[in-house]
Amino acid sequence: MHLYIAYKNYSSWSLRTWIAMKVANIPFEETILPFYHGDSLDKLGERFAIPAQVPVLEHDGAIVWDSLAIMEHLAEVYPDRQLWPESASLRTLARCVSSEMHSGFMNLRQACPMNCRSNKRLSKEQLALIQGDLERIAALWAKFEAVDKPEGDFLCGQFGIVDAMYAPVMWRVLGYGLDVSPAFNNWAKAMKALPEMQEWLAAAQQEEWVLDEYEACAETV
Amino acid sequence: MHLYIAYKNYSSWSLRTWIAMKVANIPFEETILPFYHGDSLDKLGERFAIPAQVPVLEHDGAIVWDSLAIMEHLAEVYPDRQLWPESASLRTLARCVSSEMHSGFMNLRQACPMNCRSNKRLSKEQLALIQGDLERIAALWAKFEAVDKPEGDFLCGQFGIVDAMYAPVMWRVLGYGLDVSPAFNNWAKAMKALPEMQEWLAAAQQEEWVLDEYEACAETV
Ligand SMILES: N[C@@H](CCC(=O)N[C@@H](CS)C(=O)NCC(=O)O)C(=O)O
Ligand SMILES: N[C@@H](CCC(=O)N[C@@H](CS)C(=O)NCC(=O)O)C(=O)O
Repeated sequence: MHLYIAYKNYSSWSLRTWIAMKVANIPFEETILPFYHGDSLDKLGERFAIPAQVPVLEHDGAIVWDSLAIMEHLAEVYPDRQLWPESASLRTLARCVSSEMHSGFMNLRQACPMNCRSNKRLSKEQLALIQGDLERIAALWAKFEAVDKPEGDFLCGQFGIVDAMYAPVMWRVLGYGLDVSPAFNNWAKAMKALPEMQEWLAAAQQEEWVLDEYEACAETV
Repeated sequence: MHLYIAYKNYSSWSLRTWIAMKVANIPFEETILPFYHGDSLDKLGERFAIPAQVPVLEHDGAIVWDSLAIMEHLAEVYPDRQLWPESASLRTLARCVSSEMHSGFMNLRQACPMNCRSNKRLSKEQLALIQGDLERIAALWAKFEAVDKPEGDFLCGQFGIVDAMYAPVMWRVLGYGLDVSPAFNNWAKAMKALPEMQEWLAAAQQEEWVLDEYEACAETV
């Protein structure tokens, strides 16, 4: 398997797939395509007739694009890794919450671009704009608290796709000093402590690329 | 099973789920929640702590929201209906293309709201805005033409989730007189001819609700 991603510091969709594969112990090579620096991502898109977006997974000659489709593909190829939970009702909940991220949370995604290195604070107006998204995340975390599930620190007990889909939210909440809920904080702590997440962070910290637009969106404290 | 949808004339995400269930012969009751007329959708959202959006599926006491998660849920509950194609590589392709619709085609979705009753034409500026989306759809249809698949008029041969995900594009192309590709036209003809699609259209034509914003977005011819 070969995973094409972008900036570790900034590319939220890349992180989702990368962390899922690493924690599930799926071996892969990776290539970084920094889309604002050069045209390597455009070239990949043209070559495979896919959108010029990351992540992209190459597997046995097949090209798999879009994070959610990659996740479903991995879950099928590695059923023993339980990327989706075993319980059918928990799996359906995890899929609803993952799909909601895939097509939603536009205000949060726009106001707080993922930036693993940042320590920023939003203006009152920006905070007002994302308040609904933060409340929605708290409500989702409460849903997971209310269901029967295996032991563990993650949304369905053990780490899985739904955690990966919200991994960038962990960085957003930490990096912009946001307030969601105590249940969210516990989850964020476990996510950040994953050795694989620490590996991602270390790589992000060493990257030399800087995206001015992402840096200027809020005040650094 | 109980499916909550909205206006048949206008609600594109509702159509996706409804047509998938009908063509796959999955029995369900339906309730229409016209979200700009009254607060029935808001009330459903509050009751189940889900976004005030349709479609929503109620099944055995579980609440399943978001079209793509509903599709995956149905595919698991009714494996014999082959909502995803049987071939693994074709299934992965269908999932990529379905996910791309779920999070993409923003310009087309915004410039051409689904409106089964309409016969409208866009301005030059609007056409320029959606040109990239139309070319992308043509490229996707070419991908399906280039792969091995069972006999049939639909993207993977037999009708499935990926056809359902693009069902509103059929109405958009017809209703706004757009040009995609000959392969697309053949597919659109088969989609429109489905008895279940004719049933949806008949209901849309009889609906009395009118959404002014959707009607005013382009000139009627
Ligand atoms: N729906 C896609 C979204 C992917 C996406 O937006 N990726 C961003 C990076 S996080 C990207 O590649 N942007 C490059 C560009 O749009 O030029 C997915 O789920 O994979
Ligand atoms: N990501 C959702 C999108 C659903 C959606 O946007 N539905 C529209 C109708 S087509 C809706 O319910 N709009 C009501 C509102 O936003 O008030 C899905 O895939 O189901």
